[in-house]
Amino acid sequence: MAGSSFGEAFRISTWGESHGAALGVVVDGVPAGLRLDTNRIQEFMDRRKPGQSKFTTARKEADAIEILSGVFEGKTTGTPISMMVRNADQHSKDYSNIAEIFRPGHADYTFYEKYGIRDYRGGGRSSGRETIGRVAAGAIAIQILEELGVEMCAYTKAIGPVAIASFDADEIRKNPLAMPDAEAAKKAQAYLEDCIGRQDSAGGVIECRVKGMPAGVGEPVFDKLDASLAKAMLSIGAVKGFEIGDGFAVAANNGSVNNDAFCMQDGTVKKETNHAGGVLGGMSDGDEIIFRVAVKPTPSISQPQKTVNVHGEEQTIEIHGRHDPVIVPRAVVVVESMAAITLVDALFSNMSARMDRIVDFYQKK
Amino acid sequence: MAGSSFGEAFRISTWGESHGAALGVVVDGVPAGLRLDTNRIQEFMDRRKPGQSKFTTARKEADAIEILSGVFEGKTTGTPISMMVRNADQHSKDYSNIAEIFRPGHADYTFYEKYGIRDYRGGGRSSGRETIGRVAAGAIAIQILEELGVEMCAYTKAIGPVAIASFDADEIRKNPLAMPDAEAAKKAQAYLEDCIGRQDSAGGVIECRVKGMPAGVGEPVFDKLDASLAKAMLSIGAVKGFEIGDGFAVAANNGSVNNDAFCMQDGTVKKETNHAGGVLGGMSDGDEIIFRVAVKPTPSISQPQKTVNVHGEEQTIEIHGRHDPVIVPRAVVVVESMAAITLVDALFSNMSARMDRIVDFYQKK
Amino acid sequence: MAGSSFGEAFRISTWGESHGAALGVVVDGVPAGLRLDTNRIQEFMDRRKPGQSKFTTARKEADAIEILSGVFEGKTTGTPISMMVRNADQHSKDYSNIAEIFRPGHADYTFYEKYGIRDYRGGGRSSGRETIGRVAAGAIAIQILEELGVEMCAYTKAIGPVAIASFDADEIRKNPLAMPDAEAAKKAQAYLEDCIGRQDSAGGVIECRVKGMPAGVGEPVFDKLDASLAKAMLSIGAVKGFEIGDGFAVAANNGSVNNDAFCMQDGTVKKETNHAGGVLGGMSDGDEIIFRVAVKPTPSISQPQKTVNVHGEEQTIEIHGRHDPVIVPRAVVVVESMAAITLVDALFSNMSARMDRIVDFYQKK
Amino acid sequence: MAGSSFGEAFRISTWGESHGAALGVVVDGVPAGLRLDTNRIQEFMDRRKPGQSKFTTARKEADAIEILSGVFEGKTTGTPISMMVRNADQHSKDYSNIAEIFRPGHADYTFYEKYGIRDYRGGGRSSGRETIGRVAAGAIAIQILEELGVEMCAYTKAIGPVAIASFDADEIRKNPLAMPDAEAAKKAQAYLEDCIGRQDSAGGVIECRVKGMPAGVGEPVFDKLDASLAKAMLSIGAVKGFEIGDGFAVAANNGSVNNDAFCMQDGTVKKETNHAGGVLGGMSDGDEIIFRVAVKPTPSISQPQKTVNVHGEEQTIEIHGRHDPVIVPRAVVVVESMAAITLVDALFSNMSARMDRIVDFYQKK
Repeated sequence: MAGSSFGEAFRISTWGESHGAALGVVVDGVPAGLRLDTNRIQEFMDRRKPGQSKFTTARKEADAIEILSGVFEGKTTGTPISMMVRNADQHSKDYSNIAEIFRPGHADYTFYEKYGIRDYRGGGRSSGRETIGRVAAGAIAIQILEELGVEMCAYTKAIGPVAIASFDADEIRKNPLAMPDAEAAKKAQAYLEDCIGRQDSAGGVIECRVKGMPAGVGEPVFDKLDASLAKAMLSIGAVKGFEIGDGFAVAANNGSVNNDAFCMQDGTVKKETNHAGGVLGGMSDGDEIIFRVAVKPTPSISQPQKTVNVHGEEQTIEIHGRHDPVIVPRAVVVVESMAAITLVDALFSNMSARMDRIVDFYQKK
Repeated sequence: MAGSSFGEAFRISTWGESHGAALGVVVDGVPAGLRLDTNRIQEFMDRRKPGQSKFTTARKEADAIEILSGVFEGKTTGTPISMMVRNADQHSKDYSNIAEIFRPGHADYTFYEKYGIRDYRGGGRSSGRETIGRVAAGAIAIQILEELGVEMCAYTKAIGPVAIASFDADEIRKNPLAMPDAEAAKKAQAYLEDCIGRQDSAGGVIECRVKGMPAGVGEPVFDKLDASLAKAMLSIGAVKGFEIGDGFAVAANNGSVNNDAFCMQDGTVKKETNHAGGVLGGMSDGDEIIFRVAVKPTPSISQPQKTVNVHGEEQTIEIHGRHDPVIVPRAVVVVESMAAITLVDALFSNMSARMDRIVDFYQKK
Repeated sequence: MAGSSFGEAFRISTWGESHGAALGVVVDGVPAGLRLDTNRIQEFMDRRKPGQSKFTTARKEADAIEILSGVFEGKTTGTPISMMVRNADQHSKDYSNIAEIFRPGHADYTFYEKYGIRDYRGGGRSSGRETIGRVAAGAIAIQILEELGVEMCAYTKAIGPVAIASFDADEIRKNPLAMPDAEAAKKAQAYLEDCIGRQDSAGGVIECRVKGMPAGVGEPVFDKLDASLAKAMLSIGAVKGFEIGDGFAVAANNGSVNNDAFCMQDGTVKKETNHAGGVLGGMSDGDEIIFRVAVKPTPSISQPQKTVNVHGEEQTIEIHGRHDPVIVPRAVVVVESMAAITLVDALFSNMSARMDRIVDFYQKK
Repeated sequence: MAGSSFGEAFRISTWGESHGAALGVVVDGVPAGLRLDTNRIQEFMDRRKPGQSKFTTARKEADAIEILSGVFEGKTTGTPISMMVRNADQHSKDYSNIAEIFRPGHADYTFYEKYGIRDYRGGGRSSGRETIGRVAAGAIAIQILEELGVEMCAYTKAIGPVAIASFDADEIRKNPLAMPDAEAAKKAQAYLEDCIGRQDSAGGVIECRVKGMPAGVGEPVFDKLDASLAKAMLSIGAVKGFEIGDGFAVAANNGSVNNDAFCMQDGTVKKETNHAGGVLGGMSDGDEIIFRVAVKPTPSISQPQKTVNVHGEEQTIEIHGRHDPVIVPRAVVVVESMAAITLVDALFSNMSARMDRIVDFYQKK
């Protein structure tokens, strides 16, 4: 079944393997007349690019994005925007020793079970490089959101056991871990150096905040805004959990505390607290949207690991080479991108919710 | 935008409001020739039915399911199965005092913002009664899974601060809280009585386990099996979080521990541990699938709460009447149902993954 | 695969078999705040109802529509509208002589090949009664279109060899054949009487005209407005062809004639002719939309016909009972309904085509 | 709304404008393990390539296809296949005289109405070059069909008033008009030369035949096989009509003739005639599938034509340059491609129709 597309009214379709000729995305449903800042797209690419610090893989990829369609004289035309990155750094190395082995924590085994075949040169579609298309599309979605006054910010909330204790938005881009707390970032770096020393890897938590989302966006039953965000997040390779607002903490709380009281402020309805995380009944409530995702430790580690091969023989594998000791910092922009894509899709889908607004839309036209 | 359907190859479309004439579901994509046990469907309905203990709403609803199509001489015909429950207990009470007030923690405000209108007689589509259709459909999905050797079991893992410490599957249906630990169930009941005494409500955690899922099911990019499960779960009214396998605990773990080593057992590939929760790279790995959801405390409480009305006036509301102090026990069957629907959809979608199997399928025919 | 739904932003899902308990439809994506005239829905039902003249089956079905959800205090609420008709006239007759025989021109054989099972009491899902749900949904779509100033009119263009020679809209509802030409209607009736005398059946052509459709609706590539209309029309049981504007006649024409010249009229762009039928490049051009469908002769005839049964034995079958000698007149409202549904879906999907209008939509809100 | 994708289980997404950097397609849902003959893809590209005879545009485009993903060591991997053609022949000519004029018969006006913007360098997405992606994808679909024993053949049935009188499959590729009748091809060429002399263009009819389709494929309600084919065909730029089997001729026929009698032949069910065109009730009946499409005359002609510009001023336009006097011959491969894509999608979707076959599929695995 075709499963490489995400979204309906605003839909992205990614393609490409980690060691193939190129990777890319087709973004369909981009409205016409948007002045597109292509530098912003490259900036997004650069945020997920490897080789930026010792905490990300040393593999060098220019990851220069090429826009192939859908933009004319600096503006979107309403037609699909196709974007592509050539795989510059295709090692023609000898894969014979790992070609038939299932790496623990990777999708090698499940991919082989599903398709009966495997591109053994790397993770194939299950590689982190698949997110190149997501991030390029996300950079477009972000620009659409900005036109609508919606702003988005994702960052590292925790690396291993080190969580942030303060929040300074300016700090996020200053440290290599994308943490909004310089102190925590330092501690996290020390923790990562320790992990590297032990030939091990670390996980973490990413948090995302969205401001300015109009109220009433999202569908009340299956296509709840938070349900779509959950799917978007769990579709990212290493993500193992999603929570919105107070998330799992609600389980031990009481209704009297967890309910957010409504009040009036400057003539508009507000909530006094935001345990809900900006979504009530699957629809945005006008408040800040806050959610978190759990990211597992990088499965590629150089310690010897027990595993089996395609012939059903038990083996020991040591994965050497270029791997991130933690993927959280590079995944931040992926989270931001997928969230932006989800929100744009929901905003567009919401436009036919009321008869009076539809009449108004077409009369005006 | 139409958002009342879930699934592609196996698709359910629910309809109906809490205080309307009826609620129901259309289940499309049910394969022909399945001998359908309709008693099982009613059993599922009864598991989510209110009025079964003092820990669920006292509202009495027979919730007798009627099958309107798609079944002939005890077997499914391949055509849509339409099922319906009449709303027996429609109070014609006076809603004037709450008709214009936004209840905290409910979707009243967001629904009003989205649609400019509100069915003030209850939660409308955002009511827990919407899940009637999901559960009826889930009871069909479960029977399909059983034909394929897949078994599913959901239960209450925690109520408020009380978590299970042991697991006895037989215990689940014996206590009113659906907990697999009789001791914990007793403690949880005491906690809930305390909540009721304080005019308050409680939340909790539901866990679901799936055995027998073949390996390689789920799509490797956006339609990952766990991503689809996450969406299914977050689409349930009060759910605020989802995690698979070790979930949020992976964040503080190391790769050397979190990676599940592969080994051979009775000639087949197995994992020595199951931190992954049965899904690798979005595809089932043949191991048990384990996931959890966080359920928020029932928002309807009889304590006075601060809120506003549709005219932008601040108000105090006290919600009396029949409400569950905790919705977790009744939500267990909803979790089970949505999981079953998601898995059936994934199993069907997976059938065209390999050319050799497609050729074999059609040659045989 | 689930295939009982049509439309995306405005989606209908039909269910029910000809001889089951009931038939119905779930209409999802109806905007909130539409004042719904339910009498109009019953009027639509009555237009497709059998037993209205000797040219339609004598079978009596009240076909009283029941609205089960989605409407509150006379207005739509934005939630799915579920509608149902109970099968009043379920003959408990003896089917043993036809239960195992494949009727020529019917879907008995293909249904059996696909599902390995057959509801032998009638056409099941392939019965004309499946269109009950389409027509009920169409009556809602028509009312949405009217709010937007779009008007629709379908009629019989030809019965067998008898085509209309003039057009009088008022005449359509006056004769039992839904022809806009009283003279042709008389001739067609004579032709049908002759067919009945010969134990035979007739086909025909239905034409549909849409006025007031705003320009630019429809998508330029796969979801062209005329492509969606073509699918909608061919999804109606007996339809074997679709053409828009000059249709098949374009094949023998020249570009110089077939191109419609643009001109200015009252300050707006118009076409001097309408060979295109109101659609250019898949998008509405503001002109009248005109299309036609070819309807095959009713396959149920009482003449002896050669066929085979499920055991692979050759048989002779005579289909007695209540059958329309021509289904064209009753199919007119089905064509109108499916066209309305298609247009509403396209109008809603079109709302996110331009960035400036999206900004305007949300700023206003 | 995103409208650049076609198909569900087998889905293509095309992108690119006639005068942009490149055009291409992402084909998702290709099963793994198909040995892909890439020469066949280029052959398909060459069949639609311009500049092959005086009856097609003289514009020279190499249209060399590049495969960017989804194929490894000559076999498909189950991941999306991305293919691209660079636009070699991008004239940097002066468009100032046509940039603001709406060409009659083209989508210029409707595109402008929809998007408020226009890529005036050519037809943009409404150009025939958009079909490059369809044909590349079609060449893959054809190879899948061949693995399943399904063979497909499309050809020109008529050019203007000249229709074929005989059928010789070998002749189709021998004449520049793709006609299976050498005599008719000669007459049609004479007719076209006459059209060229008159600065005019011609239309025609394309017929497509499919052999070996298993019975029971297609869905019985909205996703009927012929309904999906109709949509696929009307989604091709210049197509104005679709008919299956006897098509519009059924309207004047009687049931006794139009019904195809079933008989037994070599132990299997056959039809004695094929008025139905291989589809009954929306499902394939095992017989040859036959359908036709009407193609309008090329709208670009060099005669002066009356039109208007974006400023609402009436103008006269003469479209000089490189244009096909008839697009039928080059559209034949597009018809074949879209039909193949539709059939593959239907075959894949059909695999979950029966419970016993699903059980068998997974048990075997």
